[in-house]
Amino acid sequence: MTKSIVNVGLVGCGVVGTGVANNLLHIDKAGRHLPCEVRLKKIADLYPDKERPYKIPRELFTTNADEILEDPEIDIVVELVGGCGFAKEVIEGAIQKRKSVATANKALLASCGRELAAMAKEYGVDLYYEAAVCGGIPVIKSIREGLTADTIESFRGIVNGTCNYVLTGMGKYNMLFEDAVKAAQMNGYAEADPTFDLMGKDSLHKLVLLMANCFGQWIDPEDIYTEGIMDLDQTDIRCADELGYVIKLIAQAKRREGKLECMVAPTLISKKNLLAGVSDAYNAVEINGTPIGRTVYYGEGAGMNATSSAVTADIIDIAKNIYYGCVGRLPIFALEKEQCEKVPTGDMVMRYYLRWKTDDKPGVISALSQELTDREIGISSVILHEFAKAQPYSIVTFMTRETTEKNMRDAVQALNKLDCIQSRTVLLRVESGF
Amino acid sequence: MTKSIVNVGLVGCGVVGTGVANNLLHIDKAGRHLPCEVRLKKIADLYPDKERPYKIPRELFTTNADEILEDPEIDIVVELVGGCGFAKEVIEGAIQKRKSVATANKALLASCGRELAAMAKEYGVDLYYEAAVCGGIPVIKSIREGLTADTIESFRGIVNGTCNYVLTGMGKYNMLFEDAVKAAQMNGYAEADPTFDLMGKDSLHKLVLLMANCFGQWIDPEDIYTEGIMDLDQTDIRCADELGYVIKLIAQAKRREGKLECMVAPTLISKKNLLAGVSDAYNAVEINGTPIGRTVYYGEGAGMNATSSAVTADIIDIAKNIYYGCVGRLPIFALEKEQCEKVPTGDMVMRYYLRWKTDDKPGVISALSQELTDREIGISSVILHEFAKAQPYSIVTFMTRETTEKNMRDAVQALNKLDCIQSRTVLLRVESGF
Repeated sequence: MTKSIVNVGLVGCGVVGTGVANNLLHIDKAGRHLPCEVRLKKIADLYPDKERPYKIPRELFTTNADEILEDPEIDIVVELVGGCGFAKEVIEGAIQKRKSVATANKALLASCGRELAAMAKEYGVDLYYEAAVCGGIPVIKSIREGLTADTIESFRGIVNGTCNYVLTGMGKYNMLFEDAVKAAQMNGYAEADPTFDLMGKDSLHKLVLLMANCFGQWIDPEDIYTEGIMDLDQTDIRCADELGYVIKLIAQAKRREGKLECMVAPTLISKKNLLAGVSDAYNAVEINGTPIGRTVYYGEGAGMNATSSAVTADIIDIAKNIYYGCVGRLPIFALEKEQCEKVPTGDMVMRYYLRWKTDDKPGVISALSQELTDREIGISSVILHEFAKAQPYSIVTFMTRETTEKNMRDAVQALNKLDCIQSRTVLLRVESGF
Repeated sequence: MTKSIVNVGLVGCGVVGTGVANNLLHIDKAGRHLPCEVRLKKIADLYPDKERPYKIPRELFTTNADEILEDPEIDIVVELVGGCGFAKEVIEGAIQKRKSVATANKALLASCGRELAAMAKEYGVDLYYEAAVCGGIPVIKSIREGLTADTIESFRGIVNGTCNYVLTGMGKYNMLFEDAVKAAQMNGYAEADPTFDLMGKDSLHKLVLLMANCFGQWIDPEDIYTEGIMDLDQTDIRCADELGYVIKLIAQAKRREGKLECMVAPTLISKKNLLAGVSDAYNAVEINGTPIGRTVYYGEGAGMNATSSAVTADIIDIAKNIYYGCVGRLPIFALEKEQCEKVPTGDMVMRYYLRWKTDDKPGVISALSQELTDREIGISSVILHEFAKAQPYSIVTFMTRETTEKNMRDAVQALNKLDCIQSRTVLLRVESGF
C-alpha cells in the first residue's frame, strides 16, 4: 500500500494539539525527510472556536471524533485528549479501523499500554508514543532503535518538568517550596492543581513506559514505591549542597541478579553527575547498557513546542512506514522475554541521607549513630556545625553506606523514638554506583 | 524481498570489527528487536590469526574481501577498514553489487559521503554510519529520525574523545599537555601518533557529517577553520576556570541570516552549560531546533564497545529494512535544498578570550585596551592579579564582547606589536548565546 498522500486526523486540539496542527500545516519545513505528502485532514475538538496560539483553518474542525475514526481516507489518528477514558476509546476505535496511532498519553499507556500494543499488533498498525516520555528528547527512539545491540542494565531520569522547576527554584534561588510552586504555575510549568506531578505520579507513569522499553517488562504502577517532593524542606537542599549533592526527583530502574529494582523518589545526585546540572523544566535520562556504556539524553520535558515536535516526528515516522509499506517495522515496546521478578521495595539496596533537628546537648551523635550501628548500617559522612552561642537545637545530617530499604526504615522508626530529636527523621535516597 | 536470514560480511576485523563480530555472534541478546536472523557469514582481514579480545571462529575468515563482495548471499557489507583508499573500493564494490553498507569511516564520508550517498540511492541500497559520529551516542539517528519535525538552527559538540581526555587531564588534574597526552595513550584513548586528533582533524570530519545531517549542506573540510589543542597552555585553562569557564574542543555550526557559520576550535564553555561537565573520553552534542528547543546527547565517543554497539544497531536497522522490504526508507543525509552559503571565517561573529604575559609596569592595561577600543571591540571582563612583591611579568586576561573574527585577528596583529607584552597574544573563542 504505497500512498503518495498520508492523511492525519487529530483528536484533541489543546496546547500540544495546536502545536502539532501547526507543524503539520507547515510540514514542508520537515519535507527534507519525507517521501510523501502528510496532510492534516480533520481535527476533532469540543471547542473549535477557542482562541489558539496558531491560526488553524476553521473548516478542519469537527466536534465529533467519529468523523475521524469513520473516515476511510484517514491513515493516522493522533490522540491528544489525555486521560484514560475517551482517549482509550479513540485509540481502540482507530486501531480497529486499521489506522495507526500517535499519542502523548503516558497515563493511559502506563496502565493499558501492553493491551493496546497487543491490539495494534493484531490489527497490523503502528502505535507511536515518543511524546509520552520527555517530549523534547527522542529517548524512546534511542532506546528502541538506537540501542538495539545493547542489553540495558539500568536507567535513571529526571522525567517531570514541574518537579524539576520547583527543585531548581528551591536549590538555585533559595525559594520556599510554596513559592517555587507558585513560580512554576506563573511560568506555565505547573498545572493549577500540580499535586499529581508533585506527588511523583507522572514520573511513575514514565518509569513504567521506560521499563517496558528498556527491559520488556511491565511492572504494575501500584507496586512501585513512589515518593514526591511535597515534603521536601529547604534545609535538606542546603545540607545536600554542602555534601556535594543536588536533590532531584529521580525515576530509576536497574537489573540486579536477574530481578528488577525500581523506584520514584527525591534522590541526592552528586554534583559530578551530569543529571545534577539539569535545571528548570528540562528533563534528562541516563541509560547504561552493554556494550554501549553510559549515555544521557537531555531536552525540554514538556510544553507545546517540545511535545509537538515529538508527536510530529512520530507522525512522519508512521507516514514513512505507510509509504514504504512497512507498518509494524518496530516492536511497540521491547519484546517480553520471561517475566522478571520485581525486587520488593524493602529489599532494595541503597545509600541514604538522614537529617534531624535535635537537642543541642552532649550524647546526641552517639545516640543517633548507635541506632545505625545496631543495624549494621555504616555512616559515610556527618555534618554538625558548631555555633558561637547556645541555641535551642542542632541540625545533624548523616549519609550512610549501602543497606536495604527495610533495614533503613526500621532504623528510622527506632530513631524517631529517641528523646534527643525534636523532629521526625528526614529520609532521602542517595544515588549509588550505576 | 522478505528474508528470514540476513547475511552480513565484515571487512576489517581490528578493534571495532572484533566487537561487531562478537555482537553478531551473540545477536540473540538483541533478538527482542529483530524479526529475522542476522548472520555473520564472512570476515575479511589480512590477519585472521591475530590475537583478538573475543574468540571468533577461524572458519569465518578470509584474507580476500572480494569473497564478501562477490558472495550473492551477503546482504550487508560492514566496512571497518578505515581510510579513504581500499575502504572506498569496498563500499563502492558493495553498492554496485546492491548490498547495503554500514561503516564507521568518518574520514571517507566527510570527503566522499555525498558521492557515495548518491551511488547508494542509485542502486537502491542503504548506507548507515551511526558509528562515524560519536560511537556511543545515537546522534545520527536522533537527527535524521527523531528531529524530523524540526528546523535545526545550530549545534555544537565535543566530538573527539582523545582531545577531551587530554583537556580533562589538564583541567581537572593540572597535568601538562605532554603528560596528559601520554596518559591518554597509556589508557587507550590516543593513537601512537595522536596528531590527527589533537589538530582537530577528526572533529572536522564529524562536523562535516553533522552539517550534512542537520542542514543538508556539504561544506568542503578545507574551507572550515580548524584549530586543535596542541598549543593550549595550562595558564589559559586556569584563567578560564577563574572566569567561570572550561576549555573544550568544540565543533560548531549555526545558521545566521540564511548562511552557515562553522568552525572547530578550542572554546571557553560556561560552567553552567552541560557541555562543560563532559569529561574524560566522553562526547556530547548539543542541538538546537525549532520547535523542539535545546537537546543534548551524551555518551562514549569511541572505543570498541561504544562503536561496535553503534555499528551493530545500524546492521539491525538495515536488516529490518531488508526484512520488511523498505530499504531506502531514510534519506542517507538530510536532503539538500538550495546550497546555502558558508560565512567566510573572517565574517564570523564571536566573543573572544585574550591572554598575555606582559611587563609589570604602569600603562599596560591602557595600552592593551586601547587597541581593542580602536577597533570598537568591547571588553566584558579583565583579570590582573596583584602580587605582593615585584615580579618580572604579569598575566593579563581579557574577555571581549562580540566582534568579527577578522576584526579580532587584526587587533591581535596590532597587539603583538606592543612593547609591553612579553609573549604573543593567546586568542581563544568563547561560547556565545546559542
